[in-house]
Amino acid sequence: MSSLYLGLVHYPVNNKCGETVATSVTNLDIHDIARSCRTFGVKNYFIITPIALQHELVSRILGHWEKDESAMYNPDRKDALSYVQLSQSIEDALKKIEEIEGQKARCVVTGANFKQCDGTSQDLRNKMLVDNKPTLVLFGTGWGLHASVVESADFRLAPIHGAALDGYNHLSVRSAVAIYLDRLQGSL
Amino acid sequence: MSSLYLGLVHYPVNNKCGETVATSVTNLDIHDIARSCRTFGVKNYFIITPIALQHELVSRILGHWEKDESAMYNPDRKDALSYVQLSQSIEDALKKIEEIEGQKARCVVTGANFKQCDGTSQDLRNKMLVDNKPTLVLFGTGWGLHASVVESADFRLAPIHGAALDGYNHLSVRSAVAIYLDRLQGSL
Repeated sequence: MSSLYLGLVHYPVNNKCGETVATSVTNLDIHDIARSCRTFGVKNYFIITPIALQHELVSRILGHWEKDESAMYNPDRKDALSYVQLSQSIEDALKKIEEIEGQKARCVVTGANFKQCDGTSQDLRNKMLVDNKPTLVLFGTGWGLHASVVESADFRLAPIHGAALDGYNHLSVRSAVAIYLDRLQGSL
Repeated sequence: MSSLYLGLVHYPVNNKCGETVATSVTNLDIHDIARSCRTFGVKNYFIITPIALQHELVSRILGHWEKDESAMYNPDRKDALSYVQLSQSIEDALKKIEEIEGQKARCVVTGANFKQCDGTSQDLRNKMLVDNKPTLVLFGTGWGLHASVVESADFRLAPIHGAALDGYNHLSVRSAVAIYLDRLQGSL
């Protein structure tokens, strides 16, 4: 079974007008996604942004939960947040994984609007069961991952479709992460 | 196929010390869960609290997204929020469903720590496929639904288990909602 890593990308992503931007980290993205990652056995959750002030902010939030009184108040939260890592870039996250695992990771991208994909969550799950290659699944904030990230990835995961007859699938990134992790690593 | 409804319960729920409390509604629970409900074809998303000031707050938030400029800025968000309903109590939500559907709903409860359950998401999905009974799935905020709600429900859904070897399953309510909806109504 290959090791699973997750990256929440704040740059490069699109804004509503299709421009390339860096989005802000939000407190709830840190907490909700860390809890989902911890539940589904993700080895590290990378928060990816090149902005130094955002690194400071995330470090302050993580630092709060490392304090004895916070850890005592909610030990499960401290536990989940201990899997969070800060990264300057997607390349930086991939490099860290290579250092840990001793081999390059498969870079998987997600998006709500992909026209062409390389397979479903089930296909990727099967792949991960048979090979030993570590896997990094990337999620875009804002209006999604920049085209350059999508194009250079090893695997484009099929979008999540629900039961809305008109195909509506505007999930929050927090919800999309939870669903993909359940599909990839949930107990069947 | 039976109609699916969802309720986010703010009272009666437990706090960390096991006391019965009413929790506050949060803006992100409204938005994230409305988007998940809209994606997975939920007919109405009931926000359940007896507190009048909280009804005012939710109405103000929903009102903001009904304005022309907000709807123009993000029509998908307005769309999702149009499925939100305010309810005084679980009984009130069940009564509204009975009015819409012409029959009583099956009341399903969720929780991370149930010792005894009536079946998995797959069991409930199968049930919903063969009968015509509307289904209301309840999620507790705070430290989970009060025992009286769990005990009086028609169906206790099996907790979500991930891949954490130690059984850690402290998901946010937003993530749990997303996963259960995918399991119950996602396209396979």
